[in-house]
Amino acid sequence: MYRLVLLRHGQSEWNLANLFTGWTDVDLSEKGIAEAKEAGVKMREAGFRFQYAFTSYLKRAIKTLFYALDEMDSLWIPVEKSWKLNEKHYGMLQGMNKSEATKKYGADQILLWRRSWDVAPLPLSKEDPTHPMHDARYQGIPNIPGTEALKDTMERLLPFWEERIIPVLKEKKEVLIAAHGNSLRAIVKHIKNMGNEEIISFNIPTGIPYVFEYDEKMRLVKDYFIADPETLKKLMEQVANQGAAK
Amino acid sequence: MYRLVLLRHGQSEWNLANLFTGWTDVDLSEKGIAEAKEAGVKMREAGFRFQYAFTSYLKRAIKTLFYALDEMDSLWIPVEKSWKLNEKHYGMLQGMNKSEATKKYGADQILLWRRSWDVAPLPLSKEDPTHPMHDARYQGIPNIPGTEALKDTMERLLPFWEERIIPVLKEKKEVLIAAHGNSLRAIVKHIKNMGNEEIISFNIPTGIPYVFEYDEKMRLVKDYFIADPETLKKLMEQVANQGAAK
Repeated sequence: MYRLVLLRHGQSEWNLANLFTGWTDVDLSEKGIAEAKEAGVKMREAGFRFQYAFTSYLKRAIKTLFYALDEMDSLWIPVEKSWKLNEKHYGMLQGMNKSEATKKYGADQILLWRRSWDVAPLPLSKEDPTHPMHDARYQGIPNIPGTEALKDTMERLLPFWEERIIPVLKEKKEVLIAAHGNSLRAIVKHIKNMGNEEIISFNIPTGIPYVFEYDEKMRLVKDYFIADPETLKKLMEQVANQGAAK
Repeated sequence: MYRLVLLRHGQSEWNLANLFTGWTDVDLSEKGIAEAKEAGVKMREAGFRFQYAFTSYLKRAIKTLFYALDEMDSLWIPVEKSWKLNEKHYGMLQGMNKSEATKKYGADQILLWRRSWDVAPLPLSKEDPTHPMHDARYQGIPNIPGTEALKDTMERLLPFWEERIIPVLKEKKEVLIAAHGNSLRAIVKHIKNMGNEEIISFNIPTGIPYVFEYDEKMRLVKDYFIADPETLKKLMEQVANQGAAK
């Protein structure tokens, strides 16, 4: 049996300031650190002993992994970082206040950029100093994006899923991925074979470990969140409401 | 040109409590965290931009690396962990109070165990639950030690130096190693071709980045500590005194 756990990073400083983040490398807030530690405690109490972990190139995911693994006394395990697990790139929206962006472009357009399957926000120009092509960590990567729709996030993530995550899961049996709302949604869409509409209305809560259990033939047996019953009830209601509002 | 930096972790909780540590996986103290962050600031200000880092399987080194890289905005770089970079194993002394151990075994014997080139402390028995063979992280490693002399630390470290550290330094050009007093002394002995007596009286200060610069043919050009002039003066006096007391 194999167990894969997805963990979405907790509150960042820009979540707190209501700014679009995407690939901007902002830090966790104090609350975000607390969420990460609590997730580590929950996974430890649920008996997880990870042998390997993946995360993105962004510090809010890297730190979430660090604080969670520290609570599990598992800082020694191998950690593989990849830009393929980065958040969806939000293009020109990155760094904009969400309310101001709504005033400027209209609520419908913002909703489309945030939530549609294949419409990407306006791209960053290549001259923009915040374009990832100017960032040391992305040097040598061809076609590094200046904006993405969820479809694009999924397209760059799937080869990494097939070539790295699945082989490591088969070898190590218990694997943790600490990443972002949209990169994790792309993974969930793939695992659960969701439609393009279905994934749009599916949200992953922050700091709540999301477990996928596979049998010996790598068939998905079940998936569930590790949360206390009260939290779990609220989560399930949220998921249901999301479905209803679709 | 290639630059390798050695960073010895700062104060741990057992340093503070005056206990022998070795492979015991104790945490950094608050002071140790501050030392790590300060080292990161110094390396950033000195213009270092690491492309790769190595550390041990022990959290006081892993955390030192984390806090230093965070100050350098370089948490995204690959980090390779290996037990080969662990502290010297202190055998039966691990967990003993240093004063009590001196009373029990005598100062001369303790000095021999701590400082001789090839005399290891009394080994942990294989039944001892603190023997690393019972620790998940060392499973599958043949001949995992229950005690070590500095010579033994060096013998397990040198193949890793040749097979991993040197090739990565050649490829990445700027590499950081966060590790322990004795594993770093073993590296320095090798780099500087020190004799078995010379290394015994050579100490690496905690939290002070120790830089080795190589030319294009991997010949050592110079080595130096990154520290303010006042600290550096004290360090140099200590190193001189160590030599005198030999």
